Amino acid sequence: MSQLLKETLEKIQPIDKEVQREAAAYVDGLIKPIGSLGKLETIAAWIAGITGKVKGNELKKRCIVAMCADNGVHAEGVAVAPQEVTTLMAKAMAAGGSGMTVMAKEAGSDVVLVDVGINSDEKIDGVLDRKIAHGTANFAKGPAMTREDCVKAIEVGIEVVNDLADQGYQLIGTGELGMANTSSSACVLVALSGVTMDEAAGKGAGLTDEAHQHKKDVLNRALAVNKPDKDDPIDVVAKVGGFDIAALVGVYLGCAARRLPVVIDGFISAAAALAASRLCPDCADYMITSHASAEPGFTAMMDALGKKPMLMLDMRLGEGSGCPIAFHVIDCALAMINSMATFAEATIDSSEFVDIREDEDE
Amino acid sequence: MSQLLKETLEKIQPIDKEVQREAAAYVDGLIKPIGSLGKLETIAAWIAGITGKVKGNELKKRCIVAMCADNGVHAEGVAVAPQEVTTLMAKAMAAGGSGMTVMAKEAGSDVVLVDVGINSDEKIDGVLDRKIAHGTANFAKGPAMTREDCVKAIEVGIEVVNDLADQGYQLIGTGELGMANTSSSACVLVALSGVTMDEAAGKGAGLTDEAHQHKKDVLNRALAVNKPDKDDPIDVVAKVGGFDIAALVGVYLGCAARRLPVVIDGFISAAAALAASRLCPDCADYMITSHASAEPGFTAMMDALGKKPMLMLDMRLGEGSGCPIAFHVIDCALAMINSMATFAEATIDSSEFVDIREDEDE
Repeated sequence: MSQLLKETLEKIQPIDKEVQREAAAYVDGLIKPIGSLGKLETIAAWIAGITGKVKGNELKKRCIVAMCADNGVHAEGVAVAPQEVTTLMAKAMAAGGSGMTVMAKEAGSDVVLVDVGINSDEKIDGVLDRKIAHGTANFAKGPAMTREDCVKAIEVGIEVVNDLADQGYQLIGTGELGMANTSSSACVLVALSGVTMDEAAGKGAGLTDEAHQHKKDVLNRALAVNKPDKDDPIDVVAKVGGFDIAALVGVYLGCAARRLPVVIDGFISAAAALAASRLCPDCADYMITSHASAEPGFTAMMDALGKKPMLMLDMRLGEGSGCPIAFHVIDCALAMINSMATFAEATIDSSEFVDIREDEDE
Repeated sequence: MSQLLKETLEKIQPIDKEVQREAAAYVDGLIKPIGSLGKLETIAAWIAGITGKVKGNELKKRCIVAMCADNGVHAEGVAVAPQEVTTLMAKAMAAGGSGMTVMAKEAGSDVVLVDVGINSDEKIDGVLDRKIAHGTANFAKGPAMTREDCVKAIEVGIEVVNDLADQGYQLIGTGELGMANTSSSACVLVALSGVTMDEAAGKGAGLTDEAHQHKKDVLNRALAVNKPDKDDPIDVVAKVGGFDIAALVGVYLGCAARRLPVVIDGFISAAAALAASRLCPDCADYMITSHASAEPGFTAMMDALGKKPMLMLDMRLGEGSGCPIAFHVIDCALAMINSMATFAEATIDSSEFVDIREDEDE
């Protein structure tokens, strides 16, 4: 394990549960039935546990980090679009015309695009060049990458977050781009959680039934060929993951080390979150999930992660396109804790409101 | 039926399905797999059907209308908080310190608070005085209000929307305040849809099991005593509804007549939406649902309305507190259709992306 990864893992501490509890108690004193603002209450207390202060948190400086890379398994015909689309879409994202980038602008979020392994020699203006290789190897035939390259990619993610933290960013969203990356994500999920490939592998950006079965056969073969060690997340990501997933693992680790809340967005992002939380369980404390992806394996992924999404928008684009809306939900949660009146301020007897949280099914 | 209500109903037209289809086709040409932005795509096409133009829609001038009123059935012990809390909370909302009002500010939304029947003589600064009575009568013993007063309350809602439309408002959210208004809403739901009281009546802002059973007994008695006519929504709202629900019926009708998109937010707001859509089915074209309320009857309400929520935040505060986040989702949908590049602009061959909408479970 290289030095930066080692240092980062050592630096990660749980969030401050004491301040989190203090914030939750403060929220219980705001003028509403206890628990009636649901996840907004949880989010406000969670942010307090990260920043260490109950009130006055504002996370207006935010950035979505999209890791872009190609996947060698594309050669097996597991994706709808040709591999060149990764480069074309990276250009469109850099030009601000993709789904995530137009919504990031709407939500006041900056965007960092990173080429961590696009299969092209083209330099794209507006995309950070941290290319490790021209895509991964075809993991249906052997490991996607070496363990060393996997650590390199993880460290790219850590470095990007460290730069953002040094610039004062307070809230990070995760995104990705890369044809066939639902395939690598499904393999990571199966390898780490033990769910079946039927539960994990969906139709990606639109496969036929026949092509879907072919995808599952290829991915099962990949697992049989590579035998990833489920107790070694780096081994799993190196053998059946991708550079985008590895770099996102680094983003999650970096966020936890620098105490930045980070949004999980979509199936690929969640696969990286799962690998990161297996590498360092405390890291999961800093993560929150945006939307329920329409990708079929997403539910199994959430179960493995122990997280629940907050948006039901039937989205399955990727890119980090759910982050802008999640950022707004966080803004609303912080507005609640920062600005709502307390029972005392409003001269209302709080004993008139009882605790309804027992009714919730979480 | 009074003149304003009659004119308003006559004015309501369906949304422009042709422009809606045109917008959906345009969205299919944006650089993403077809259907992959899920509800954002549906929302963008829906707004186009309302405004009559495919691109360039921005709905930045928005307002949440909260109808405040007391319910005579409160005397039966169906709510946790004493009735005076309606007045105290209306003051807190007017002062900007309630859950909805702090989030509205965060989301750039104005707020209009209307006293349509608070049981108090106090004039509250910042609350529009359109009081019809000091709360409804106890509908466990007879009708909540006369049919005339119900129409008056509906017309208050229409007038508020007409004023907002005249001022250039483009997007409306609905909210309410009034102790015991989950009881009136449950009765409206049962009367209009035929679901059982067990499905419709939840624990409101936190009842015990015993109090919950008592609430259901009271509400079943109210239906037996009043025999509301399910084919006459005004009769239903007059007999077992409330002034807040009636006024919100007017808000929905007014929005449809003035071609303004309107957000359904929470159980009470949805009861009014159901009554409005029974009074005028085309009116439902203009409605969209924000969050899935944690109020147990909400699912039955959505089934009756034929709508689906987009946010899963375990909220059950009321006030219109989910509208600010729903507004942001709409902003993101409009950013998508207004600013995303087309396949042609990005020189990507669209035939590489197939239609995945058949996979969705809607």
